Amino acid sequence: MGKKRAMTPAKDVDVSSVKYEREVVQAPHLTGFVFRFFVRLLEAPLIGPVLMNYLKKENRIDQLLQYTVIPEEPMFKPEYPPQEMEPGVVVLEEDGRPEDRVESALKCLPHYDAAELWENSPASFRYWKIRDYAHAYLSRKVTPSMIAERIIPVIEENASNRPPAPLLISFDAAEVREQAAASTQRFEAGNPLSILDGIFVAIKDDIDCYPHPSKGATTWMHEVRTVKKDAVCVSRLRSCGVIFIGKANMHELGMGTTGNNSNYGTTRNPHALDRYTGGSSSGPAAIVASGLCSAALGTDGGGSVRIPSSLCGVVGLKTTYGRTSMEGSLCDSGTVEIIGPIASTVEDVMLVYAAILGASPECKISLRPSSPCLPILSSNEDSNVLESLRIGKYTPWFNDVHSTEVSDKCEDALNLLSKAYGCEMIEIVIPELLEMRTAHVVSIGSECMCSLNPDCEDGKGVKLTYDTRTNLALFRSFTASDYVAAQCIRRRIMYYHMEIFKKVDVIVTPTTGMTAPKIPPGALKSGETDMQTTANLMQFVVPANLLGFPAISVPVGYDKEGLPIGLQIMGRPWAEATILRIASAVEKLCNESKKRPVSYYDVLKDV
Amino acid sequence: MGKKRAMTPAKDVDVSSVKYEREVVQAPHLTGFVFRFFVRLLEAPLIGPVLMNYLKKENRIDQLLQYTVIPEEPMFKPEYPPQEMEPGVVVLEEDGRPEDRVESALKCLPHYDAAELWENSPASFRYWKIRDYAHAYLSRKVTPSMIAERIIPVIEENASNRPPAPLLISFDAAEVREQAAASTQRFEAGNPLSILDGIFVAIKDDIDCYPHPSKGATTWMHEVRTVKKDAVCVSRLRSCGVIFIGKANMHELGMGTTGNNSNYGTTRNPHALDRYTGGSSSGPAAIVASGLCSAALGTDGGGSVRIPSSLCGVVGLKTTYGRTSMEGSLCDSGTVEIIGPIASTVEDVMLVYAAILGASPECKISLRPSSPCLPILSSNEDSNVLESLRIGKYTPWFNDVHSTEVSDKCEDALNLLSKAYGCEMIEIVIPELLEMRTAHVVSIGSECMCSLNPDCEDGKGVKLTYDTRTNLALFRSFTASDYVAAQCIRRRIMYYHMEIFKKVDVIVTPTTGMTAPKIPPGALKSGETDMQTTANLMQFVVPANLLGFPAISVPVGYDKEGLPIGLQIMGRPWAEATILRIASAVEKLCNESKKRPVSYYDVLKDV
Repeated sequence: MGKKRAMTPAKDVDVSSVKYEREVVQAPHLTGFVFRFFVRLLEAPLIGPVLMNYLKKENRIDQLLQYTVIPEEPMFKPEYPPQEMEPGVVVLEEDGRPEDRVESALKCLPHYDAAELWENSPASFRYWKIRDYAHAYLSRKVTPSMIAERIIPVIEENASNRPPAPLLISFDAAEVREQAAASTQRFEAGNPLSILDGIFVAIKDDIDCYPHPSKGATTWMHEVRTVKKDAVCVSRLRSCGVIFIGKANMHELGMGTTGNNSNYGTTRNPHALDRYTGGSSSGPAAIVASGLCSAALGTDGGGSVRIPSSLCGVVGLKTTYGRTSMEGSLCDSGTVEIIGPIASTVEDVMLVYAAILGASPECKISLRPSSPCLPILSSNEDSNVLESLRIGKYTPWFNDVHSTEVSDKCEDALNLLSKAYGCEMIEIVIPELLEMRTAHVVSIGSECMCSLNPDCEDGKGVKLTYDTRTNLALFRSFTASDYVAAQCIRRRIMYYHMEIFKKVDVIVTPTTGMTAPKIPPGALKSGETDMQTTANLMQFVVPANLLGFPAISVPVGYDKEGLPIGLQIMGRPWAEATILRIASAVEKLCNESKKRPVSYYDVLKDV
Repeated sequence: MGKKRAMTPAKDVDVSSVKYEREVVQAPHLTGFVFRFFVRLLEAPLIGPVLMNYLKKENRIDQLLQYTVIPEEPMFKPEYPPQEMEPGVVVLEEDGRPEDRVESALKCLPHYDAAELWENSPASFRYWKIRDYAHAYLSRKVTPSMIAERIIPVIEENASNRPPAPLLISFDAAEVREQAAASTQRFEAGNPLSILDGIFVAIKDDIDCYPHPSKGATTWMHEVRTVKKDAVCVSRLRSCGVIFIGKANMHELGMGTTGNNSNYGTTRNPHALDRYTGGSSSGPAAIVASGLCSAALGTDGGGSVRIPSSLCGVVGLKTTYGRTSMEGSLCDSGTVEIIGPIASTVEDVMLVYAAILGASPECKISLRPSSPCLPILSSNEDSNVLESLRIGKYTPWFNDVHSTEVSDKCEDALNLLSKAYGCEMIEIVIPELLEMRTAHVVSIGSECMCSLNPDCEDGKGVKLTYDTRTNLALFRSFTASDYVAAQCIRRRIMYYHMEIFKKVDVIVTPTTGMTAPKIPPGALKSGETDMQTTANLMQFVVPANLLGFPAISVPVGYDKEGLPIGLQIMGRPWAEATILRIASAVEKLCNESKKRPVSYYDVLKDV
């Protein structure tokens, strides 16, 4: 009684008077035996719901979803009015051939000076780029097969770690050799398929890459779901000549942000082997950061591309919802998840993005995507466009991080940007961040629960990790009206953001609220639950998922312990070109001090 | 264990081999003390969920939602590819003035022969039409104020029935007189606003009509939600000069199909005073059927316009989802509900429809509606268009009715239509009708629960009728993943229907599986739960709600007891013009034998 609360309609909220509220998470940090016992309690018939209700009450979830009158109607998927074309861009043919789009993307890049690269080794560390590989292949210095023979032993050696810490959880050397031989032949015949021919790419284990199984890092998913062909994104890369190294490790079913994996082993951060990579795309980020692959595909439903990219010091792009086809991924039917590329540089992200983009026809009916565009980074016009950009920053949120080194480094990068190009920094306010997070967890959790339910009820639920089971207990507790309420909140948060986007072109934050966390001693065997770390890692990633906006994480430096820090740039719907442009500028400005990861394989060295 | 079942993707289902399955409802029929006790059990902390789970299991709801792998992704709202323009229509300006649209609609109607009407009283019973009133006003035979004085005493007398059986639950004679005086003045000044000026219209109690409260037939809704202005549809009618008689009775919160109302009294069927009107728009249908109002607005989320129209022998139009604005109605945020007109003839439905149509801007962003159109009923072209129409009928479903008189009469009407115009009848198969019903109840129930939750938690839940509380107990039991699963089913059912609509222009069924049911002796005081009657009444209405298609109920005759029977014509998305055209043809063919309701007020007689 008396708990009812009515929200003011979003359009009547006086945003200027909104006070920033720090997120306070009320949940225990558990590992080992206590964790396993806690999960059993959560799953028990009578005590489970009581315990879950207590946790939800402590975190104000029930109050928001059940006692609050939300005047907005539900927005079940991101919806936008038609968007204006971004300035200074090249339009790509969404329905054309991936190879042609990659060719267009190539024309957007600055001049490639091979001589400079191969002759004078650069002062600071730098990753080999896709164009470096292509140049090496075309100049016959090396073949894809030769590169394969440099990578395969590392993968194999890596697989025998004790305790296991695999980058890949499905790998077939013979199959990689076969792909490499075919690519080598194409180069010999003088007919490479595209700039991506012979480029080694890893695919997250929740995206189909034939003939590999898609386990989503579970122990049983491949038994109930057979992979018969490539996911649409993967097949687009394949037609460009990409060589798929295998299925990259991940947090089980994508339900975690550390990359902890008690089924197959936890991938280690190439910058510090006792630390997490971040997740859920742990393997994809780590394999790129370690220099073994030029790029990887990940999925991002709650930061899963951006978080590990940030923690591993590489670039990760969350595409606009509906920009990439989800056909052939384990999470093909949600409202927050996308497939996006991870690579070591913005230009490589651009090349892979150009290849994979293109929505499914259903998506086009419901979403009306604007045409995909890329920034012309090689033109003088580019700095003119940069000059006119307005960059939004919500300072109390920006600074609400676990370690101030993170926000300081991001601030430094923005100051460099502002100084170099004169972009305008605009202070903004984003109301209802707690509501936003709640709407997000209810959406992703319920959609995930829906696709897992039949298997869980079929006895597979107990074969999941304790970490996943904790999440499923929460997700199972959401009612249908919670779900609808979350969608009403989505409309509010969308309103606030679209208002902000009238005044700014992008919104910047750190990608994560902390650098790579240490792996606790007890967490390798049976996992852990640590909602505070989850909250720190997810602090800034959620709006791009709930609202479908494109966002990119780009490295801007390191903390005192040498752990990478990422800056997140989130753009208007469909405005991938703008965030790629800014990320490229930031990358150039912050490139001086690039550190070589502890675990790095210099695959193209001395060819 | 072992309950898991995987559905074949809808596009791979061999529809021709689908067997029709009769719906079997497993639920008790309860009234009086036993019913009240049952509701208390359902609401009890531990026994309630167990009882509800048992009922859901018996009706295979849990199996479908939780143990079934549905390969389709969710479709949260009806989504359609762009539709072709219907043949032989007039396009209305959605963003224009309602008066102008009504003027266009008028031009679509056949010639109006006043002489014939007023001189020779017709052989069989016939309702006064809007054009009859307009003619009477324009020819100064009568004024709106004079008509008001004929209606008001009936309403007042009716309100003092014992037991109460009100048509209206909010009525203010002075306010009606004021509106009528204003209209009278406009006619005196020679400036009526439109053909609808001075026309008496009732508004269902869940649509705002200022200054009346909107209670949704509850005892408390007006205490927590204040009406400050007209709903958008009502304000459009007001600008055409309509006189609003008051707020019409309904099944509490629209959550029932009989019109039973233990709060304010149950509206009686004008054709048989011991029988239900059908619901939930009980008052709107009855007030039109009784001759007191030319038209009424109802809401239809699960047949609530069509069912009472069918049972009361009038015409009811369910508009395409998103065609009419829901702003200012109690159910403004669902995915299945619309506002639609009820009138005694198809032409009057057309005139009111022309006035109220026009989606809200948000709706246009997400739905891309085709332009609203009306059929040109006065042209020769009309019969050419009718000739080329293909009418789909799923015979085993069509014939699965409580009394074969219903299907026989509908069949007769179709035979007349086929004979008169040569329309082609095509046998179709609609798979997964049980799945469709489940997806519908989960959708409407969860969306409704979401908006009621804060008030229910605030202590208002126990002030609802036992009937509503039974429904809420069911709705509360749906999980978030049930809701998402229901949306996946929606995509399947949409697929089947859009495939059928490649072969046919409309799908015909009886509107209801039975004629007006008797009101059980014990049901007036504390209501009843009778899922079998609900199933009979909702047998054919659900696809138009779940999929958003337009559908119309048109009277085609009577059963042996003189109770009206309605034919339902459901069209492609946005194709209101086509179903109005067919309904008009059917109406003409079946008009001979029209019966005067037992409770009929000849308001325009002897003017």
